[in-house]
Amino acid sequence: MKEVPVILIGKGKVGQAFLHLLIEKRSIFRGKYQVDFFLQGIFRSSGGALWRRKEAQEVFFFPDEQLESAEYWQAGFNFLDAPLKKYSPGVVVLATASLLETGEPGLSYIRKALASGWHVVSADKGPLVSHFRELVTAAKTRGLSLKYSACTAAALPTVDVALTSLAGTEIIKIEGILNGTTNYLLTRMGEGLSYEEALEEAKNKGIAEPDPTRDVEGWDTAVKILLLARTIYGVEVKLEDIEREGMSGISGEEVRQIAGRGRALKLLGLISRDQRKISLSVKLVPLSKNHPLFFVQGAEKGICFTTDTMSLVTVIGGKSDPRGAAAAMIKDMINIFTRF
Amino acid sequence: MKEVPVILIGKGKVGQAFLHLLIEKRSIFRGKYQVDFFLQGIFRSSGGALWRRKEAQEVFFFPDEQLESAEYWQAGFNFLDAPLKKYSPGVVVLATASLLETGEPGLSYIRKALASGWHVVSADKGPLVSHFRELVTAAKTRGLSLKYSACTAAALPTVDVALTSLAGTEIIKIEGILNGTTNYLLTRMGEGLSYEEALEEAKNKGIAEPDPTRDVEGWDTAVKILLLARTIYGVEVKLEDIEREGMSGISGEEVRQIAGRGRALKLLGLISRDQRKISLSVKLVPLSKNHPLFFVQGAEKGICFTTDTMSLVTVIGGKSDPRGAAAAMIKDMINIFTRF
Repeated sequence: MKEVPVILIGKGKVGQAFLHLLIEKRSIFRGKYQVDFFLQGIFRSSGGALWRRKEAQEVFFFPDEQLESAEYWQAGFNFLDAPLKKYSPGVVVLATASLLETGEPGLSYIRKALASGWHVVSADKGPLVSHFRELVTAAKTRGLSLKYSACTAAALPTVDVALTSLAGTEIIKIEGILNGTTNYLLTRMGEGLSYEEALEEAKNKGIAEPDPTRDVEGWDTAVKILLLARTIYGVEVKLEDIEREGMSGISGEEVRQIAGRGRALKLLGLISRDQRKISLSVKLVPLSKNHPLFFVQGAEKGICFTTDTMSLVTVIGGKSDPRGAAAAMIKDMINIFTRF
Repeated sequence: MKEVPVILIGKGKVGQAFLHLLIEKRSIFRGKYQVDFFLQGIFRSSGGALWRRKEAQEVFFFPDEQLESAEYWQAGFNFLDAPLKKYSPGVVVLATASLLETGEPGLSYIRKALASGWHVVSADKGPLVSHFRELVTAAKTRGLSLKYSACTAAALPTVDVALTSLAGTEIIKIEGILNGTTNYLLTRMGEGLSYEEALEEAKNKGIAEPDPTRDVEGWDTAVKILLLARTIYGVEVKLEDIEREGMSGISGEEVRQIAGRGRALKLLGLISRDQRKISLSVKLVPLSKNHPLFFVQGAEKGICFTTDTMSLVTVIGGKSDPRGAAAAMIKDMINIFTRF
């Protein structure tokens, strides 16, 4: 049995979902993978709490106030340094939300973790957008894993399909419906709603954020294809180099006109390879019925790989919620320590 | 650079496609994966030929007669023993077609390969149907890999999605359109052909075998779900335990009646898990439009995983021809020697 300490940073929706899932599945993983993931600590930007193994289980779900008032609480960001060095390394799990421009605060956490010999599983896109090359190199140099499935469409498998299931193929093109919110809006507009009505409905259902800009302007999709392209092709592309089209200017009428012609309007993240050149774009594309992503409806996601030797391989689904993201993080953890 | 000798057994359609692909991609793999797969030998049941590295490239594509008349040819099945022991171990690639009942001749080849420390990539279902547990245990005990993507729907990723992309989830149900031939027949029957007409067309197009029994009676699908269930759940299920329905008794009229009710008749391989019990069946199922496999048309394949934490994950596509099978074998080889 491998004993793997886990330090979680960030205790928002995704962090909480991760905690719940880890507790729920811990004994299953012990049996199935011969790995015991146990929580060593939880950190937020204001400080952190550490446990001896037996205590941890009982205090996982403390509300933040109780966490801070507990005697094992220590204030301040630098508190992370000591445990990373003190305990035998395991996995640092990052469920923070950092700035895309600077990558902070997540960037500092990942740097510290890798420098101390900890693997990293990140649901935080910021540091990967701003300092991808540095972090990937730092991990590789030390023989550590840096995984981020939760940043590349979470429960929809993308990176591992490209790298494992399609190993040895040339991936000529990637087309993805990688943002559930915009696909939900476009689906509902096709069914008769206006953009505003669809957005209102999506907000009420918790599908759209109160400020949907990042989704509807295509930024979220752009970030995902950025990370996919960097991972799969090793290219140095930047976010600002991506040709990006949003969907906020589209009317329900336009979507329905396209539907009337037998097509479905989709906001696609596109990566295409032409010889050595990799092009990235986010575009509204009217898909015909014979396109594998035509039938991806509502908040569902999908990705279609065009390969040289396996033809088209399409993956559809993957729950788009904190639990789905948590499941993707746990998948990453397992894939670090086991091998099929 | 890892230097990996490859011994190919079987020089039929799949074996030939494998050779072509290996030559075509060898230098790409050297650059991309830092692995040099070079052909050490080719064997058929009647004997085998071995090369020093530089010679191999030139004689890969010899017709069989020339292979046998070449001076490096040695007759007899036992000729395999010496090179397996003489050369530093690499991968034995099995492109033979063995009996499902006895697993021979492939079974003996795999046993010899593993006993001599060689990894095995098999496109031959026979030994895996007849002696799965023995072979998997033999590989595991020696720290070797035994992979067989080409037996579990080839270029459609199934096993690696289940084990890698869905790691940590509970797979509650698996539904698969795993046989391209029967899906082609059902699709064309839905479009107006009779069973006989559809079969004739499929034979002319090279989609159906001259004797289609194994496909249309559901045996091929049964074998695939058998291997999936054994791999994913580790269960000891046998081929004869699978409830199996074929499609040869279905008329075009019946398929079209079902289509008229907005459903698509599909021959599904089904694995369901209820507590500890795993049930396997091959069934004709009328799928409704909201089923992710409804739109899998013609010779395409697809598999749908119902999970606890990632919801539904569906994979569609994967070229169903010798080159697709070869690509799956090469994927397996790469996944033995690299890690993403």
